[in-house]
Parts: sequence; C-alpha cells; structure tokens
Amino acid sequence: MIPSKVKIVEVGPRDGLQNEKQFVPTETKIELVNRLASAGIVNVESTSFVSPKWVPQMSDAAAVMAGIQRRPGTIYSVLTPNMRGFEGALESKADEIVIFGAASEAFSQKNINCSIAESIARFEPVAKAAKDAGMRLRGSISCALGCPYQGEVSIESVVDVVERMKALGCDEIDIADTIGTGTPKRTREVMAAAQSVFPRERLSGHFHDTYGQAIGNIYAALLEGIEIYHASVAGLGGCPYAKGATGNVATEDVVYLMNGLGIETGVDLDQLVEIGDFISRAIDKPSSSRAGKAIFTKKRDGVAACA
Amino acid sequence: MIPSKVKIVEVGPRDGLQNEKQFVPTETKIELVNRLASAGIVNVESTSFVSPKWVPQMSDAAAVMAGIQRRPGTIYSVLTPNMRGFEGALESKADEIVIFGAASEAFSQKNINCSIAESIARFEPVAKAAKDAGMRLRGSISCALGCPYQGEVSIESVVDVVERMKALGCDEIDIADTIGTGTPKRTREVMAAAQSVFPRERLSGHFHDTYGQAIGNIYAALLEGIEIYHASVAGLGGCPYAKGATGNVATEDVVYLMNGLGIETGVDLDQLVEIGDFISRAIDKPSSSRAGKAIFTKKRDGVAACA
Repeated sequence: MIPSKVKIVEVGPRDGLQNEKQFVPTETKIELVNRLASAGIVNVESTSFVSPKWVPQMSDAAAVMAGIQRRPGTIYSVLTPNMRGFEGALESKADEIVIFGAASEAFSQKNINCSIAESIARFEPVAKAAKDAGMRLRGSISCALGCPYQGEVSIESVVDVVERMKALGCDEIDIADTIGTGTPKRTREVMAAAQSVFPRERLSGHFHDTYGQAIGNIYAALLEGIEIYHASVAGLGGCPYAKGATGNVATEDVVYLMNGLGIETGVDLDQLVEIGDFISRAIDKPSSSRAGKAIFTKKRDGVAACA
Repeated sequence: MIPSKVKIVEVGPRDGLQNEKQFVPTETKIELVNRLASAGIVNVESTSFVSPKWVPQMSDAAAVMAGIQRRPGTIYSVLTPNMRGFEGALESKADEIVIFGAASEAFSQKNINCSIAESIARFEPVAKAAKDAGMRLRGSISCALGCPYQGEVSIESVVDVVERMKALGCDEIDIADTIGTGTPKRTREVMAAAQSVFPRERLSGHFHDTYGQAIGNIYAALLEGIEIYHASVAGLGGCPYAKGATGNVATEDVVYLMNGLGIETGVDLDQLVEIGDFISRAIDKPSSSRAGKAIFTKKRDGVAACA
C-alpha cells in the first residue's frame, strides 16, 4: 500500500525564498537550485514570473533561469500567475508551469478578490499555452486542509478544485495545507477524495509544519498511496500567516522519514543537510529543520556526553 | 483500531527541567506542576529523587512534592534510581515510582557501567518496596528505537526489557525513543512486539522530536492502539546528545494532533499554550512547540495579512 518510491519536489527557491524580505542575491539562488539538483532532487520549483511590484524577491526570475545549469532529467518549475508570466517562463525554457487556486472561498476573495471558480478560469489561457508549448502543467490547491479566514474547508470544495484543474489539463495536482492546521485523519480523507477524481500517482502533498503536524500528515498521505511530496530545504519560508511560526516542512525531515520507512527518494540526505546550512547562513536565519540541525550538530560535535 | 481516548503523561517538570543548567526556582517548578494538573493533565512526572550531586536541578524534590497542590485523581510520578530515592518518594507521598533501563547494551554500559540485565535487577528492591507500599510502578525503557552509541537497537532487546520490567511488577511500561531517531514503520513494529508480551493499554510511547519524527511516530503508535503518550510542555529539555537540537515532543503539538483526530485527552489546549509561554519565559528559552508558537502568535497578532 505504502509506495516504495516517492518524488520530492523542492519548493525552497520559490515558495521558501519568496517570503524573505531581504533580497537574496541571484547568484545565491542559482547556487541553491544547482546544489539541490545535484543532491538528487528531480523537481525544483525554481522561481516565479510574477510582477516585481508584488514580489520583488522574484524580480530576477529570468536571470535565475538563465543561470542555472540544467541537469538532464530534472524538472525546473516556475510559477506563472498570468500570460505575461507565462511568456517569461516560455522564454526561460522552464519545464513546468505552476498555476494555483485556493479551495477556500474566503481565501480566494480576500487574496485575489474573486471566486474560486473565477480564479481557476483565469488560468485557461496559461494552461492552454503551456500545453501547446509541450510544457508540463501543475496545479496547486492552497488551503486544502484549512483556511486562515474561514477555518474549515470542505472536502467537496477541494474535490471541486481538483476537477477544475484536471479540466485545465494539469499533469500534476498539489493538495496544499497552506497554514499547517491539518492532521492525519483529515489528510487521509482529503487524499482519498482527491484520488477518486484524479490519478493517485499524479497527486502531491504539500504540507506546512506550522502546528508540528507535517510529518504525521505525510505518513498519513503515504498510507493513502500518495507518491509526490513538496518540501523546502531548511524549512525556508516561514509562515506568512503567523509571524515567527514554522512554514513549509523541511526537506531534510521528509527525506529522513522516507529513509526510515525504506522508501526511495534518490536524494542524498548528507548533501541536503549541507545545502540547508549553506542557505541558512546565506539568509542569516536559523534552519527550521530538526533532522538537519541534529545531523549537522552530530557531524560537528560527535555524540554529546550522556546527561 | 485507533483509540478514542488517550492519556497524556506530562514529563516537562522532570525529564524536561532536568536538562536545564540554570537552577529553576522551586516555586516555579511547583507552579508548573499545579498549572499542568489544572489544565487537565492526569499524570505529571513531577521530580526525581536522585543524588543532588548528579542532578542538582532536582535537589529540591522533597520541597516540590510538599509544595504542590494535589488534585484528586491526578497521578504525581517521581523518578527513583535506588532505595534512597524510594524513601524520599515514599515520604513525599508520590503516587507513582518510575524506574528505568535502556534497551541498548552499549548505552547501559556507557551510562551506568553495567549490563541491561544487571541494571534492571538493581531495581528489584525499589520495585518490591513500591508494590508493598501500594504505589504505582512505571518502567521506562530508553533507547528503544535507537542508541547514540550502538545505533540500531533490536526489537528482541526491547521485548526482553519489557519482560524484565513486567516481572518486576510494572503497572505501566514506556517505550522511549530517547534520541528521536525512530520513524513510523519501526515504531509500529516495536509497539506491536511490545504488546505481544505486555497489555497494550498499559504501554506508553515516549517520543523525542530530534529528527522531526515524533508526531509521525505518535500517529504510527496510535495505529497500533497505544493509548498513553509522554510529552513535555514547550518541548522543555532539549536533547542532551546533540547541543541545540530538539528533545521531547511538545505537549501542545501532541494535544493538537489528538484534537484533530477526535481523540479525547481531557487537556485544555489553550491553557497548555499559556503554560508553555509561562515556563519558556521563566527559563528564558524559546518554546520548541510549533503548535504552541502558532496558537500564541495568532492570539496575540490575529491572522497576519496574506503574503
């Protein structure tokens, strides 16, 4: 039942760094993407072609995409909110386009001032253009396990968005616990419902560790057969809805879990821990990866004396 | 299969504070225990009757036990390494005596300079005295999912210690992942093996979050029917084997998990979050509870604006 192999989608360079106020030098972003691919990550969410007015951190999207060394077989994804973003993505030779929508009506209204249905419909031209260009298309569903404004989000609502994204031609669909309020039972229910309308092997789990539940939720999703997981090295990104709280689950913790379960990821955990240290120093913030900190400390200090 | 109700054993005042170098005032310890019991914790590991030379932090054990307000129905446990400690526990009217041993031969040798079998046998007089005095007896098995010295610990070794502790008359036995290296598959195997020789409803899971796996392991243990879980408010204690790494899983995160799964704990999460804030301020260290930080921040700031 539990898969023997999973794909890890690293979202640190985009979903993670996007929340950093201080501009991260383009060279650092490029090095981050390159090192992640070298460590065995086969899908790196690399940047976002958005208005630099909205997200100044991603204003160097074209330069990042031009600077990275493409590793054969690795998928470099970019977020594109509209056709203008898509043009940038196309020029940059991105492998995968990411479109997005919330499963929460309140979130959709507050965030982009339109209904869920409208928000998905707006992506039609982008989706069509991506398919025409032979690019992969991924749809990301935020607030699938809870919303900062309305609280509970119904499973029907998640399934509805999965179906809309499927109709747009999405190759892969992310079920995202954007605020980290989900717990394993609900995770299993949502994952089971989603695979009733979309192929299980192309559904992914994107969990935030804000309430410390991400690893529990990932284990729950594994029990439902989910084979793709998002994570952010060093837990890059934090939580935009609660200052100082944890955001994306750390890739190190996820790979540690998979190793312990005997599930193949193709990712070198030791290299990943080094990358977590590199980027944490570069942005001058402590890593939020527990496995990362434990492995790094043990390597440096050896086993501390018994208490 | 998953239990509908679990017991939370709060270990912060003993297992947590014991690792604090700075002496925590007796009044603070007493307030901590009292507030935890008020929040609905029915078993508080309150202190340790050990040599003050070894663990100066616990040198006020008698004063702590004398100072706390006994809540009817709440079990106040104390750790006793030997008969001298037991006498202190008896005088202090502790409800439960905790004895301990490692499932790892290397740990036992390095830590207490004797074999596992000898270490358990040494507790015979304490166990007998506790039973004669009508006190509850709990046995805690450390390194059940991994050892800082020998690495892997066999399931046979854990089962052997469970049987030895059962023979001593233990009412409850803890399976402890002392260094937090365990993952859900192994957790399930160990929990399944332990209940083949000891009643499931009197086995407990004691997980450390050093590698970020504790909540995943607790969910795994729930799937094996385990009904008792240890946790430390605010994640008090840290990890004595890796400086700066996380130790005990935070009680807030565990109660959040149980609430999400619809499992009754009897614990008030809001009060628990306040207690986590209280003790973190008192010892001047940040809480390592993710749920605690998220809930506290949300209460203080409301929902932050969308990114």
